[in-house]
Amino acid sequence: MSKVLIVLLDGLGDRPSRSLNGMTPLQMAHKPGLDELAAEGITGIMDPVAPGIPVGSDTGHLSILGYDPYRYYTGRGPLEALGAGMDLRPGDVAFRVNFATVGDDWTVIDRRAGRISTEEARALGEAIREMAAGFDSEFRFEFLSTVEHRGVLVMRGDGLSDEVTDVDPHREGVKAEMPRPRSQTPEAERTARELERFLRRAREVLESHPLNVERVKKGLRPANAILPRGAGKMPKLPSLRERFGVSSVVIAGGALYRGVCRAAGMDVRIVPTATGTLNTDLNAKFNAAFESLRTYDLVFLHIKGTDTASHDRNPAVKASFIEKVDRELRARIDQLQDVVVCVTGDHTTSSIDGRHHGDPVPILIWGEGVRRDKVVRFDEVSCADGALGRIRGLDVMNVLMDLVGRVEMFGE
Amino acid sequence: MSKVLIVLLDGLGDRPSRSLNGMTPLQMAHKPGLDELAAEGITGIMDPVAPGIPVGSDTGHLSILGYDPYRYYTGRGPLEALGAGMDLRPGDVAFRVNFATVGDDWTVIDRRAGRISTEEARALGEAIREMAAGFDSEFRFEFLSTVEHRGVLVMRGDGLSDEVTDVDPHREGVKAEMPRPRSQTPEAERTARELERFLRRAREVLESHPLNVERVKKGLRPANAILPRGAGKMPKLPSLRERFGVSSVVIAGGALYRGVCRAAGMDVRIVPTATGTLNTDLNAKFNAAFESLRTYDLVFLHIKGTDTASHDRNPAVKASFIEKVDRELRARIDQLQDVVVCVTGDHTTSSIDGRHHGDPVPILIWGEGVRRDKVVRFDEVSCADGALGRIRGLDVMNVLMDLVGRVEMFGE
Repeated sequence: MSKVLIVLLDGLGDRPSRSLNGMTPLQMAHKPGLDELAAEGITGIMDPVAPGIPVGSDTGHLSILGYDPYRYYTGRGPLEALGAGMDLRPGDVAFRVNFATVGDDWTVIDRRAGRISTEEARALGEAIREMAAGFDSEFRFEFLSTVEHRGVLVMRGDGLSDEVTDVDPHREGVKAEMPRPRSQTPEAERTARELERFLRRAREVLESHPLNVERVKKGLRPANAILPRGAGKMPKLPSLRERFGVSSVVIAGGALYRGVCRAAGMDVRIVPTATGTLNTDLNAKFNAAFESLRTYDLVFLHIKGTDTASHDRNPAVKASFIEKVDRELRARIDQLQDVVVCVTGDHTTSSIDGRHHGDPVPILIWGEGVRRDKVVRFDEVSCADGALGRIRGLDVMNVLMDLVGRVEMFGE
Repeated sequence: MSKVLIVLLDGLGDRPSRSLNGMTPLQMAHKPGLDELAAEGITGIMDPVAPGIPVGSDTGHLSILGYDPYRYYTGRGPLEALGAGMDLRPGDVAFRVNFATVGDDWTVIDRRAGRISTEEARALGEAIREMAAGFDSEFRFEFLSTVEHRGVLVMRGDGLSDEVTDVDPHREGVKAEMPRPRSQTPEAERTARELERFLRRAREVLESHPLNVERVKKGLRPANAILPRGAGKMPKLPSLRERFGVSSVVIAGGALYRGVCRAAGMDVRIVPTATGTLNTDLNAKFNAAFESLRTYDLVFLHIKGTDTASHDRNPAVKASFIEKVDRELRARIDQLQDVVVCVTGDHTTSSIDGRHHGDPVPILIWGEGVRRDKVVRFDEVSCADGALGRIRGLDVMNVLMDLVGRVEMFGE
């Protein structure tokens, strides 16, 4: 049975840019490999959720993997925690966390604590973990720092609720409010109360940590608080194996993408040089993806650089990153026997304003049994002429799995 | 008011075939009549249920007639029984049945009982009907043989359940398991128990039937058991007359298609030479359809050969059958005054692997008041350029009925 390779370029879709003569980065990029696949396959445009609805990478990925985010999305916290390698059990509540610099009254001075390094954050995280181990509460707290100022916090125990407010105010110059219950339940009240105690204790540990004392001496901003957000419980997704009978693996630098895929029961293949940024080791990632096709039915290759360039508001860098991806893919087209390939994005990120938008993203599907349409270029506008028409994120997995005979017939 | 003619080519959609230079049978076929209608009308692609979801002929037809199969589909049994001409009342449970050859332990040796003829099956069916008339049970059993090894069985009475397992294992070399309740209700248990008694009694009748004794003597496989599957109760559909105020009729060789249409309250016009296979009398069917347009508001002409050729994995035969259909239609285009014509399929059946798939099917609509788009060819890829875009099966009947002014306005 044929295999399936999904190459997902994060934030691939874009809007026209004056600096690119009214073209999008994808229209501007020289990408003969992607255009070849488009010419030989079928194309279309895809709304991750629905026309005009901007989605996050979390909800976008859920949808494209076939999980209705309106039903299955339980917040970003648990997806990040899963992606960071933590195990979540039913009932646990997980948060995304930032190391931040806050004033005495918890006014947020710097949401990224002076762009603290991954190594420094790890040392501070270790101190929080030690404190947590001895922290006196009805709940257990587990903390893990991940990349730079980012981390995850998991609360475990009976009677937790994810109905608690964000502490991170998402911007600077305003106070970080202590967590409050978002519903009038004893569980939410208890969760908020214990979380507040933990955050205040963590602040004490951080303020007095030698590394922060040193930073202040040097005139750097101390990472003197952790600010959680995105509380959520473990989503209960039927796995891809249950739904389609396939083995599957994700290759992604970022924790979130690994997390969504882990929630779907996929394996995670770590590529140590995959950074989830513009300077990632694309060659190593593509090698890992093509190697994985030998043993897995479905390989999901996530590439972040397109989104990063968009958030940096740099259309030219986005175009040239697409060209790099194209070179890697093109060099391996000959190896695509008995593989159905899908290239698409999880949402549109404008490289003009750096924000996610609800415009559809282009999608191409190539391989044995795929109807060939007349479209010969892979971009937001050309693909709108394709024979796939305009589909939704939730359709993508069914369409791909049906091409390889993995979708059960409805009726007789 | 204009009439509506639907020409439904079963399993019309297909995938590209190497033996047809990468084209589908519909792309390959010479079909000037269909292309003319496409050129003068509007075209699109249609997902019987949703992108990537393969459907059966039962669920596909329900959807295209405007009945959401997720809501209305109750199994194939009752649709086949209706199509065979049996009357179903609320509470009845109907099954599809095969005459089969089974071993002493009910291992299935031949699911089609040595391809028993319709005539022989009728004689055996008569014996089962006689037995059923005197069968001592709280339920009544009615049996009818239809075409070759096929038949239908209906159980009538109070307290029946359609929550019973298939007896037909759908393949040979494995045991046919006696019916079991699929839910823990007294009704399901009672239904399964009485059905088992009936099947065992039917086996006794069949084993000793002179016709089977004779078959064994001749070295032929006896039709020594009946194997039911697809238990279901009568679906409760609002009729097309209730929904749109139209009189309607179906012309179809196969029982299933007649059954779905009867469930929708349509009349059935029998064309004795319509066989539901590749050698059907297309001329007689088209004559009957055009004649029916004089007296009915809506005529549904079902043609099975496209699907048969696909299941036989013969793209060339499919293409040439499409050409035959085209000739019949083309010869009558002049007679299409005040008729809105719709040509489409109920699902994609690949003539490569012989299976149903979730690819969309092309659709064309032609007639007075229909917008004319730029598409001039009727096939899976050309129609994706059409002004209908990509629609769903559930939309089709509304679109057609609205063209003839039969859909009530929503709002004021």
